[in-house]
Amino acid sequence: MTIVRAAILGFGTVGQGVYNIVQQRREALKERLGGAELVVVKVLVRDLHRPNRVLPEHLEHPEDLLTDDIDEVFRAGVHVVFEATVGEEPAFTYLRRAVVEHGCSVITANKVMFARYGAVLQELAAACVPTPAASPATRLYVGFEATVAAGVPIIKTLQNMCYVQDVRRIEGIVNGTSNYVLTELREHPEKTFDAVVRQAQELGYAEADPTSDVSGQDAFMKLLVMIGIAFGRQPDRATIPVTGIDTLTPEMLSDARAKGLRYRHVVSAAVESGASPAGLTCAVGPMLLGPEHPLYHMDGTTSAVTVWTGYLDAITISGPGAGMYPTASAMLEDYAVWMAAFGRSRAAPA
Amino acid sequence: MTIVRAAILGFGTVGQGVYNIVQQRREALKERLGGAELVVVKVLVRDLHRPNRVLPEHLEHPEDLLTDDIDEVFRAGVHVVFEATVGEEPAFTYLRRAVVEHGCSVITANKVMFARYGAVLQELAAACVPTPAASPATRLYVGFEATVAAGVPIIKTLQNMCYVQDVRRIEGIVNGTSNYVLTELREHPEKTFDAVVRQAQELGYAEADPTSDVSGQDAFMKLLVMIGIAFGRQPDRATIPVTGIDTLTPEMLSDARAKGLRYRHVVSAAVESGASPAGLTCAVGPMLLGPEHPLYHMDGTTSAVTVWTGYLDAITISGPGAGMYPTASAMLEDYAVWMAAFGRSRAAPA
Repeated sequence: MTIVRAAILGFGTVGQGVYNIVQQRREALKERLGGAELVVVKVLVRDLHRPNRVLPEHLEHPEDLLTDDIDEVFRAGVHVVFEATVGEEPAFTYLRRAVVEHGCSVITANKVMFARYGAVLQELAAACVPTPAASPATRLYVGFEATVAAGVPIIKTLQNMCYVQDVRRIEGIVNGTSNYVLTELREHPEKTFDAVVRQAQELGYAEADPTSDVSGQDAFMKLLVMIGIAFGRQPDRATIPVTGIDTLTPEMLSDARAKGLRYRHVVSAAVESGASPAGLTCAVGPMLLGPEHPLYHMDGTTSAVTVWTGYLDAITISGPGAGMYPTASAMLEDYAVWMAAFGRSRAAPA
Repeated sequence: MTIVRAAILGFGTVGQGVYNIVQQRREALKERLGGAELVVVKVLVRDLHRPNRVLPEHLEHPEDLLTDDIDEVFRAGVHVVFEATVGEEPAFTYLRRAVVEHGCSVITANKVMFARYGAVLQELAAACVPTPAASPATRLYVGFEATVAAGVPIIKTLQNMCYVQDVRRIEGIVNGTSNYVLTELREHPEKTFDAVVRQAQELGYAEADPTSDVSGQDAFMKLLVMIGIAFGRQPDRATIPVTGIDTLTPEMLSDARAKGLRYRHVVSAAVESGASPAGLTCAVGPMLLGPEHPLYHMDGTTSAVTVWTGYLDAITISGPGAGMYPTASAMLEDYAVWMAAFGRSRAAPA
């Protein structure tokens, strides 16, 4: 029987979601992945002695599982690392070490880290060959579905499309907080921007500090990750205009309402026709859409991405773009797809 | 260098689409699949001497490529078969022989055949181990993305989800003709059902004989394929009520309009809560939807499927569910995903 030894880096909402799903789905995953059993052997937390830490109720022997020392994680002998921390560092250093020094596959939900270092991580992983004795799989894997729109499977869809399709344009609503705020402001013109942001915080849709959401920075990171897959390169960040929903005035909103149009906060990237080599036009900001646009109807905390290609016209995928289980389950889908394709105990094809 | 030898069965719209894409994307596919080159070596047609056959302009030496003899296809030494014919037979017999007698992978767009024999084909393929000398891949593959909603990637999305998610409910608009007719009847109340069906035929959305579309049978086949993946079993066909859009009266349509509701032709399957072992409730027919339903806004020839799971709430995927290139490109995505995972010349991870 194959045991796949996992570590979780970061034990906030998403990290705990990964832990819970591994417990809840242990038997189903094993059955569907040719008998390979996923076991969490270490969880890295920032401060081992933080007071008032809330842990999953069913977590047994937390003193053996939790550590604040990355070397203790690696010494435990890990095959796959689920990374659910925030920011570029120390996440990248940890994942680079996981791949290069320990031959681990890595699965991340960290968009800020991945927007910067995703290509590097993938190159490092491609250059590593797992040693048959130590690894449950024949190839190292870098999973990042959860970095964009959580459980909405836009990353794998783009990866699969790109073998055959030339992507011409991507447009997406990828920040649930912004979309919630815009939806509320449209449906309740009497409410103020600040009141709706507070309401989003109370409902758990917005962070205590909502700057990254309302300024467009969070959406920008997700756009950069999608561009890397869809167009195989990265534009110069400094050339992309990034504006947030905080630039919209009540007058602009009431004007849109009067015309039957809707503001959505949209990230976009499109191939410039005629340019050679083909350039990209990218933008992040409020966009005024009519009812014929696939993103016009996407209300509330929904995330949605539309991709235009030569063979397909437009494909749109929508769903919950944030939250404990949508994000954590996307990470475990990455794990399962990797094991089904490259695991030494291969699953029967579905 | 690996050469992957392909045959196309059936050379109508979809078969010619596959042929064209293989020519158009030859270099890109080769580059993205570790140097493996896909070459069409035989095309099976029903009648070699059919007058007025229209062939792709760039097809060289059609006399060497075309045959009406399935044994000539197999004698050519084929690794993968793209099947784009209509009906259960002879399609199933050909694909069974391809898998069992010749160790071929098979990729199909034939929903009627696959709804009946999909599970059998997958079991046969799982039991076959390709001989290393003969095969470009380490595992036989059965691809069928194109059987449901063409280029809308609902099959792979469901397959990936099912490792981690428990699917609770599926609802889909999977017949573009029906959706077009319902959209037109809503937007133009003065038009008759027959006139709109004729209009759909003139625009190429409906077949010369539209019975299978308007009766719900086409959608029913697609539902059966989705149920097989989402719930891992097949219900008794005879127990599923199937009605078409031809059961809607002008009174029903005007009543819906007055209430702000819309009829969509919806296929659905849901786990019955409380039943043990869990039963399925399935249906095919017109459904009256309000604006909060994810399928309410899907107008025209769009296909769309919504999947509800425990971890994700609802995910919706929509796009063009029919047509030469949406269907053919889905078949080539199947090929590419198979080769990327199981090809002996593996592509670098995207």
